[in-house]
Order: sequence, then structure tokens, then C-alpha cells
Amino acid sequence: MSRKKKFHFEVLKEDKKSRARLGVIKTARGSIDTPYFIPVATLASVRALGSDDLADLGAHCILANTYHLHLKPGDEVIKKLGGLHRFMAFDRPIFTDSAGFQAFSLGLGREHNISKIGSIFPEGRETEDKRENLTRITDAGISIKSAHDGTWHFLDAKASMKIQSNLGSEIIMAFDECTSPLSDYEYTKMAMKRTHEWAKLSLKYHDRKQAIYGIIQGGWFEDLRHESTQFISSLPFDGIAIGGSLGNSKSDMHQVLEWVIPKLDERPRHLLGIGEIDDIFECVERGIDTFDCVTPTRLARRGNLFISPESGGGVENKFRITIKAPQYKDDKKPIDPRCTCPTCQRYSRAYVRHLYTANELSYFKLASVHNLHFMLRLMEQIRASIQNGTFSRLKKKWLKTP
Amino acid sequence: MSRKKKFHFEVLKEDKKSRARLGVIKTARGSIDTPYFIPVATLASVRALGSDDLADLGAHCILANTYHLHLKPGDEVIKKLGGLHRFMAFDRPIFTDSAGFQAFSLGLGREHNISKIGSIFPEGRETEDKRENLTRITDAGISIKSAHDGTWHFLDAKASMKIQSNLGSEIIMAFDECTSPLSDYEYTKMAMKRTHEWAKLSLKYHDRKQAIYGIIQGGWFEDLRHESTQFISSLPFDGIAIGGSLGNSKSDMHQVLEWVIPKLDERPRHLLGIGEIDDIFECVERGIDTFDCVTPTRLARRGNLFISPESGGGVENKFRITIKAPQYKDDKKPIDPRCTCPTCQRYSRAYVRHLYTANELSYFKLASVHNLHFMLRLMEQIRASIQNGTFSRLKKKWLKTP
Repeated sequence: MSRKKKFHFEVLKEDKKSRARLGVIKTARGSIDTPYFIPVATLASVRALGSDDLADLGAHCILANTYHLHLKPGDEVIKKLGGLHRFMAFDRPIFTDSAGFQAFSLGLGREHNISKIGSIFPEGRETEDKRENLTRITDAGISIKSAHDGTWHFLDAKASMKIQSNLGSEIIMAFDECTSPLSDYEYTKMAMKRTHEWAKLSLKYHDRKQAIYGIIQGGWFEDLRHESTQFISSLPFDGIAIGGSLGNSKSDMHQVLEWVIPKLDERPRHLLGIGEIDDIFECVERGIDTFDCVTPTRLARRGNLFISPESGGGVENKFRITIKAPQYKDDKKPIDPRCTCPTCQRYSRAYVRHLYTANELSYFKLASVHNLHFMLRLMEQIRASIQNGTFSRLKKKWLKTP
Repeated sequence: MSRKKKFHFEVLKEDKKSRARLGVIKTARGSIDTPYFIPVATLASVRALGSDDLADLGAHCILANTYHLHLKPGDEVIKKLGGLHRFMAFDRPIFTDSAGFQAFSLGLGREHNISKIGSIFPEGRETEDKRENLTRITDAGISIKSAHDGTWHFLDAKASMKIQSNLGSEIIMAFDECTSPLSDYEYTKMAMKRTHEWAKLSLKYHDRKQAIYGIIQGGWFEDLRHESTQFISSLPFDGIAIGGSLGNSKSDMHQVLEWVIPKLDERPRHLLGIGEIDDIFECVERGIDTFDCVTPTRLARRGNLFISPESGGGVENKFRITIKAPQYKDDKKPIDPRCTCPTCQRYSRAYVRHLYTANELSYFKLASVHNLHFMLRLMEQIRASIQNGTFSRLKKKWLKTP
């Protein structure tokens, strides 16, 4: 068990017209080509997929959730079973988050009924009981009330490091407090100060076999983002993550990146919990190397399937078709005629729609495979475009920007 | 579209001590080694699995449901899309049933709250609205009220043949009326007479490119079973199916087979909608060649996973473990340590249990793959044992019978 940390990041090429960069993260369990979109396996499973599907998709890595796995089935159980890789039969690099995002998602995010880039949730979470703030946060740490059984769980930097060590991921995150777009300057500053203290504790307590990213906070306040960038990047983290809140709109998010990224050194940069297809282009352009987000698989489960510009996708339809639409009832074409995923190679829109409307379980795999394949191939195209010096042309083609 | 029917059945070996026999059904889309357990794809999908999973499992064939596909997405739509094989991307032989089973399952089965071998359902169907008889049956045919939207749909032999032709399966079933174990002699006789008339009409109207099985009815009445056996086997069907009701217990079912099978000629014999593991042994022994049943995948979805005798399976535990049991929380062993399925090759009971208790979608595939693989490998063992003259020894080992 004397596994030595292996973590190396190299920038292979920088775009001439933007901050976009091509790179590679090397770990003991394999490499991650960047820019990369990391599929999320919240509970040690990318929803609806097995590890065989992840292998077929050629996923370089995944990201699993510390808080959720701590509760279910328990990180001690996972450790006893040989760690997360063995547990879920995935032998490539795994990222884990620190549970700091739950300070927001189960706390002010619920109370404010808002996402971390400020969108009020259009659906769900509207009932009063779903708006209960399930967190109590002090400088000592974060207490979270389980939505399942009402029990309280206390986490601090030391506990987060211990859990992530038990999980045995390659790349871990420092413990932090993610704030709400509706938090004011004073609160955001206080949370940032805590995050900085917790960053130092995370470095102190983390498992030396794991690479660790520090998390920059500061909300949508320029001086706080500058302060947090300066502080976090002064510490000997292996990589830098940018946490929410990211303001109240996508342009606010871009602004945050423009405050932060020019001050960073060459270490890899991860943007937590983003993104949609347009976000990927905008944030790669501003210098982000890796993303993680549940969107592709969540959209798939809800019947929203990605299509490329060649097949009619664009910013206006968010690069999606809604498979339940009646027009697909007898449509022989695959979801995206340009797509090479296993679903599009085998099945028609009519069949996928049939499974969706009939509530067939096989729908979820077919749809999730498509959307994830789509994202991973998009990242391939983005990497190739940076290599060839055509990134801005690719972005224009997809986003139809001037 | 001038596909010529290709259907040939050959008995390769007969067991010396029983009616068990080894055979092969040959169709234009490939062969089915018998005895065989046919996975059920009710709505053109074996629940939770894709056609790639069926290929990995080496499934020789599947059975799809005429009534359900007629309603959703519609057999005309499937025809327009190139037929069922293309629709669900499955290129091996497909059986379809005739919709006659719904006469029972949506009719007296609901009203009597009973299965076709007489078990009162231990769970579900207890509410009054679930016990509404949704069928009206006359000599002309069967009217079925949709449980979804309350619309009525009339089916007769001609319609059933047309729907099955649109679906384009290799092997179809004659239109019949499946009766309830609680139906009396007079009703069962009347239903049998209708079934016989419908058998002749099915032969008249069926698509000559499809092989057709006649269905023997007659409930648990010896003279009716004899009469139906004599009548159905006198007609030029390609194969013979035995329909429910099959009495009030498994021994009643065995009795029905003992009335029927000795009177049959060499044509292939299908037992509709059975079975559990002990049923397979008992019915193969009595001369059944093929089975179809939703049990393996349904049990899987409910957390009941098959284990072999070597791993503790037996009649007393129905060859199953209940994966949610706390003892599996940190169990490193695969579901069945003797199993060679993809799930058992990759995952521990602890992981499968975690997915089940966390309600993760990937559970359903992992569990369904295991249970179906288990059934298909069991059939392989049974075929090998008939080949080697050791069937009765294999049966004893599994059922621990004297």
C-alpha cells in the first residue's frame, strides 16, 4: 500500500488567439488529455451505465462525490472493499470532490432555490420542505442533515481528507464552502476566509498518495476573487479548482474566469460543476482544462438528447432534441446522424422515443451513452482544434458567434 | 420482401429415462438449441438491456408481445420502420405471442387476482381498480380496454395474424383464449372451443413467411386437454404451444403436461409463460423444448438474484439471494462465485447491493444480465446433460430430489 503519488501536468500547446490550451494530466492510473469533460459518478456509478460502458466510451476519468459516498455505502466500507476503483470496477483516474459543494447545494442553494450560476430553478425544489436549509456552517466545519433520515453529519477539512483517502481517488479537492449567488459581500468574504483556513488544513491532513486541488472561492466579487486566487495559488496544491458562486448569469461566470485565470500559473485548472456545451467553449477559451457536470446524463434521463451543428444543433435549441416530440414517432434516423456512438449506430429516434415514452429501463442507458459520447467527442474536437490552431473557428461553427 | 419461411425442428437425442430431448430449431435468422429459455422483450426491449447485452449474453432468440406492441408504438409503425428486428436491433429469431394471454392477464386474471398456475398474487393488484376485468370475450374475438387511456381495442385471429405479420417475427402464435384456474368446466370448454376455431382462422390468415405454433388449452380438465391436444395437433402447425390455465399448483401443471405431451408428435413444444428454475427441470423432463418467462428479469429488478447449488442455491431459497440483505453490505464475493457473467466478473455483492439500495439505474442492467446469463447457462447445462445421458443426475443435484 505504499503507492507513491504520481501526478504530472504538462501544457502541450497554447492557442494563439485565446487562453485555450492543450495539455495532459498524468497519473499512476493513466492520462487525461485536456481540455477534458469528466463524467460524474455521484454514488460510484455514472447513472445508468456500467464500467463496461465507460470503457466503451473511452472515458479517461470520472468524478465521484465524497459526501454522498460517505453516507452511502460509507467510505469505510469502500476502503474495506479495496477502494473506489475496485468497488466500481473502474481502473482509470478518479477525482473526488470535497463535500464543500453540499454546503451550498443542501444549504443556501436549497434555501435560495437557486443554482450556483444564479438560475432560479424552473422546476422542482418549490415545496417548502425542499427549501429547508440542511446545513449549519461554522469556522469549524459543515454540519449536514441527511435528507433521508434526518441525522446530522459533521464534516471538516480533516474528515474530508480522511474520507477521500478511504475512497482512494487519484485527485482530491481541498475542503471549501461553496456560496450562493444571493450571499452578500460580507457573508461571501467570511466563507472565503474559512475556505482559506480549510485549504491549509486540507494540505496538512491530506493523504500524500493523492494529488490535491485547492479551490478558489469569492463569489462574484472582484476583490475577493483576486484575494482567493492569490491565496490558493500561493499554496503547494497540485492543481487549482474554481468553485461557485459564479454570479447570476453566464457572462458573470465568464467575468469570474477573467478575474481569476490570468493570475494563475501553469497548474491544471478545473471548473467545478459546469457545463453546458456553450460553457465548454467559453471556458476552454478562457483557460479551463477540466470540467465536471451531471448535465449530459441528467438531460439524457429527461429526454433531451444532443445533436451537433451538422444535424441542426445550436445555441437556440441548446444542441438538443426532445425525444418525446411526436415528430420522432416514426423517424428512422439515429438521434444525431453524424454521431458514432453505439446508440446511434444501432437505433432509430423512433425506437429511442418508444423506450422513453414506454418508460423502459433500457432507455436510460441508450440515452446516457449518447449524450456522454457526444460530450467526449466534442472535447476531442476541441483538443484537435487547439492542436491545429483552429479552436476559434470551431467555436464559431458551434456557437455561431461573429 | 419475398422471404420464404424457413423453419425446421430436429430432435437430436432423447433422454433414456424421461421425455427430455435435445433438439434444434432452425430459422432463416439462426438456430435455437433446445431445451431453451427465451428471454421476454415485452415492448421490444428485454427490460434494462440493449441488444448489445443480448449479443453478449449469446441469446439465441427473444419473445415479444403482440398486444403491447400493437398499442405502443403500434405494429404499423414498426412495420414502416422495417420490422421488429431492425427496430430493436436484434438480428436473431423472434417469437411473438398472439395476445390471447391478455384475455386472461387483463381479464379473469385481474378479476380473480390470480396467476395462471393458480397462485393468488401475494402483492400488488389488491386494489379494486386493479381488479377490474378489462376484457370482453365473445366467439368473435377479444376486446381489451387499455389500462392507460381507457380506449377499447378489438382483436381477433385475423387481426392477431396481421399484427404479427407487421412485426415480422419468425415464429408466431395462433390466437387463443387463456383461461383462469378459477374458471369452471363449462367456461373452460367454451373458451377451448373458441380457441380451436381461432386456431383454424389463424392458420388461414397467417403470413406464410412466418412459422406458426398452435396453442393447446383446456385448463385443468383431463378430457378437455385431451380434446384440445387432439384437435390442435391435427392441424398443420409448425409447433405446439401449451397455454394456461395450468391448474392450481406446480403438481397440477406437471399433470397437465403428462396428459398432453405423450399425445404429441415430434413437433417442437413450447410452454407459455413458465418458468422458475424448478419448473424448467420438471418440464424439460416431461418433454418441453422451449420456455418464455419474465421471471428472471423481474426478479432481478426486485433484488432477487440467482445462485447455483454450489453457491448455496436450492429449492428452499428458490435459488436466490435477496441482495438488499444487510449481510451483503461489505461482501466482496460476486453474486454467485461460480457465475461467469459480466456482472459477477466485475462486481461484488457489496457494490450490487449499494446500487440497489441507492436506487441507481445501473443496478437494473447488472442484475438483469446476471439472472438472464444464469438461466441461459442453466439451459446449456441441461442440454449437455441430455447429450451425456446425465439429465436426471443434474436434476437431482439442483432440486435435491431422491
